[in-house]
Amino acid sequence: MQQGSVGYVKTKKHEINKKIELKSGKKLGPIQIAYETYGKLNKEKTNAIYVCHALSGGAHAAGINKKTKREGWWNKMIGPGKAIDTEKYYVISSNVLGSCKGTTGPSSTNPATGEPYGTDFPLIKIDDMVKVQKKLIKQKFGIEKLLAVIGGSMGGMQALKWAKKYPNHIQHCIPIATTARSSPQQIAFNEVGRRAILSDPNWNNGQYYNKKAPRNGLALARMIGHITYLSDESMREKFGRNLQNKQKPSFDLETDFEVESYLNYKGKSFVKNFDPNTYLYLTKAIDYFDLTNGGQTELQEAFNHIKDVNFLVIAVSSDWLYPPYQSKEIVRALEANDIEVKYSEIRSSYGHDAFLLEKGQMKHLINSYLSEIKVSDISENNIPLIKKDSSIKEASEKIIKSGQTHLPVVSQNKKIKGIITAWDISKAVAQQHKDLEEIMTKEVITATEDESITSVTKKLEKNNISALPVVNQQKEVIGIITSDIITQLIGKEKPSTEQR
Amino acid sequence: MQQGSVGYVKTKKHEINKKIELKSGKKLGPIQIAYETYGKLNKEKTNAIYVCHALSGGAHAAGINKKTKREGWWNKMIGPGKAIDTEKYYVISSNVLGSCKGTTGPSSTNPATGEPYGTDFPLIKIDDMVKVQKKLIKQKFGIEKLLAVIGGSMGGMQALKWAKKYPNHIQHCIPIATTARSSPQQIAFNEVGRRAILSDPNWNNGQYYNKKAPRNGLALARMIGHITYLSDESMREKFGRNLQNKQKPSFDLETDFEVESYLNYKGKSFVKNFDPNTYLYLTKAIDYFDLTNGGQTELQEAFNHIKDVNFLVIAVSSDWLYPPYQSKEIVRALEANDIEVKYSEIRSSYGHDAFLLEKGQMKHLINSYLSEIKVSDISENNIPLIKKDSSIKEASEKIIKSGQTHLPVVSQNKKIKGIITAWDISKAVAQQHKDLEEIMTKEVITATEDESITSVTKKLEKNNISALPVVNQQKEVIGIITSDIITQLIGKEKPSTEQR
Repeated sequence: MQQGSVGYVKTKKHEINKKIELKSGKKLGPIQIAYETYGKLNKEKTNAIYVCHALSGGAHAAGINKKTKREGWWNKMIGPGKAIDTEKYYVISSNVLGSCKGTTGPSSTNPATGEPYGTDFPLIKIDDMVKVQKKLIKQKFGIEKLLAVIGGSMGGMQALKWAKKYPNHIQHCIPIATTARSSPQQIAFNEVGRRAILSDPNWNNGQYYNKKAPRNGLALARMIGHITYLSDESMREKFGRNLQNKQKPSFDLETDFEVESYLNYKGKSFVKNFDPNTYLYLTKAIDYFDLTNGGQTELQEAFNHIKDVNFLVIAVSSDWLYPPYQSKEIVRALEANDIEVKYSEIRSSYGHDAFLLEKGQMKHLINSYLSEIKVSDISENNIPLIKKDSSIKEASEKIIKSGQTHLPVVSQNKKIKGIITAWDISKAVAQQHKDLEEIMTKEVITATEDESITSVTKKLEKNNISALPVVNQQKEVIGIITSDIITQLIGKEKPSTEQR
Repeated sequence: MQQGSVGYVKTKKHEINKKIELKSGKKLGPIQIAYETYGKLNKEKTNAIYVCHALSGGAHAAGINKKTKREGWWNKMIGPGKAIDTEKYYVISSNVLGSCKGTTGPSSTNPATGEPYGTDFPLIKIDDMVKVQKKLIKQKFGIEKLLAVIGGSMGGMQALKWAKKYPNHIQHCIPIATTARSSPQQIAFNEVGRRAILSDPNWNNGQYYNKKAPRNGLALARMIGHITYLSDESMREKFGRNLQNKQKPSFDLETDFEVESYLNYKGKSFVKNFDPNTYLYLTKAIDYFDLTNGGQTELQEAFNHIKDVNFLVIAVSSDWLYPPYQSKEIVRALEANDIEVKYSEIRSSYGHDAFLLEKGQMKHLINSYLSEIKVSDISENNIPLIKKDSSIKEASEKIIKSGQTHLPVVSQNKKIKGIITAWDISKAVAQQHKDLEEIMTKEVITATEDESITSVTKKLEKNNISALPVVNQQKEVIGIITSDIITQLIGKEKPSTEQR
């Protein structure tokens, strides 16, 4: 087990019993959804990050699968101390609708026939994938609001769709190496891949599950894909014009160059673990993705209902399949709506695949972005308060009843006057104080809603305290932020549990 | 018939009877070579331009084929007053060895079996194509030295190979949108295309000529190719996300977008006129092309034996298949050898295909480059001279015997003293002069070897004369340049035939 790994993991299943209506108008159900989770969901359920995979991925994003012994597709990024730090965040990763890695798709059994769906499976859109993901977090985990949704390529489309479809259910959206609408070039590459599968005689109109699969077609599609995931430069660095196990060209139609051998190998190994029909369905979903409704609306209109989602948009300098200009289009559309957005371009020669590989830059970008989470993102708001003229008995009863260790003391008009802890109550009993004012801390350090978590953490550490009342501009208490919540997000060691 | 067209043309055939040895070591013959010519070869055979085609082209480069009624693949560029002006130049275009458009290739009949070669056809290299072209110009036209070799993409590789292999047989090399060595990305795209053909069950190990051809495989290969020939930008301009004959996506696996329909159409129509085996052979030849011997030598060494070839290297700004940096590599390598080279980048959004489309920019670049042909490129050097103390009779005899209308008059040490024409002789007879000095033109306008043809043309026109002696720095006569030669290259109307 590597250091920083989430260790061995198991893919689990959740079933959505009721049929859902798809964007095509068709209904589909029941739906099984394969998922994995890493890290620990905090009590408040405010630290969940949804990771969305690209075309060929699955639920197995991190760690090592117990059964297959395979590493997760984003293992470089997810784990203790990594870009998506499982010591702070609860990471949920699921296989998309229409795929073949555990979630219902064309290779799943159609309950109506007892046979694999094949092309009876309805066409799906990115929207449908996200709809299913939303049901998973609600039904399975009872999560109301995700801290973030993150993904690259097709995963980035899902992240964008989350922000558009469920703007009140996510706080941060991190689309990487993606676009707001598939370009004709992207569609063209997908179409050639599909055509390769469709023209393979073994495709048999999608009913090949008990026969020979259209492996040649799928391998070809994957080979084309692979070229688009790499940059010209990275291919030169990786392969050059090296020959494959020979001193000079063989002057026949066989493989001469390393790059040919690599592509053929990639194509062949891909077909062992991927369903050709899924390739057709997912590439169609990618092609359909278009936040401008076929150009009927401006991109900025796609985001004009979004209020409280913050964005980190990441592109890769050498990505020619989803070039940076497409990410910048998203950024401009968000800015036009005064939505908070940060744009970063990974400097890499890897091409599109850089989002799977550049762990150093990704860690820096994502860590520093998520560290800028604001107090309002994670503070508790329905907290008990106590009026300053209450008795110590009343205060102690409130502490016990609410389970809160810290009780803000407020004036009649809710303005902060002090803070009192269980430890203060003990002190009052020991020293026989009667009034709250005698034992409460009066010089209360507070936080504001807009304050960054980095800043709050510094205050907690500097003053050796474990909670800050959150106040608005009128100094009215509107919530509390505790080191317990922050610890799971930011720090690894708890500050002292005492005020003072 | 369009204005500026070379009109109806016929593809002709030339047979090379003797077997030639290929770079692979194998021998091949007899070889039939299909070619077309446009314009008129001048008497001195100094105005021939060889046009080399890319992967899918053939001998039919310009005009309209009498039989097929099809336009030539470079009709935009070749014709009267076009980039390659058939009023000045004699244009030769042939189908490459290994192709399927008239020149011997895998679909030709193998004389040993009476059946099509199929995969018994030997693998070929760009070098072999050029070797055959060289034989054509020598055997068929008796041309010793081409004025220029020009071509784009695979055609540019042939042009470069001409310069390297036959540096004394070409004066100008114009490689366009090409490379000095196929990159791994280029090889990768070719390999996927080949794999599509090889994995088509109809390929049948190359023996499909009396059966169903691997049409699906070839169509796929062509579709992939097409994407690489266009730029992302040009595809957005051309197709956007327009749907094909529908108002909204059909939510099935059929064609939704215009770009898909276009590619499918291009794929299907290509297979009607192209041999799948040829696709395999020509892409292999492209992959093998490498002027650095697999990196064993520096590119500049490839050109270090070239002395008298001038280069115009043209790249396309939006070409991502053969990006400008690859053309610049060629330029740097030439400059390192002090070879005269001009580099130009066509500003175009068309991508690789721009070399077939941007007729305006191409005309400007190629015209102005070729107008910079120097006197030494086309002057006649073994010309009769007459000493200044010769008799008029001797002079007239020399004129009649040599067929030259202009006779430079020189001193004992070959320095220019005057010029005498047939017209001067007539004058001497009429006016009964005895000495050359009395009738010759003494203030002779001369040209130098390094002078541009544009400059010479201006002198001829300005002084209303029809020939200039070419002199070296010591004013010794080393040749003559006549308006007859230049007229075919530059001007359309002859200047006066008289000196003075």
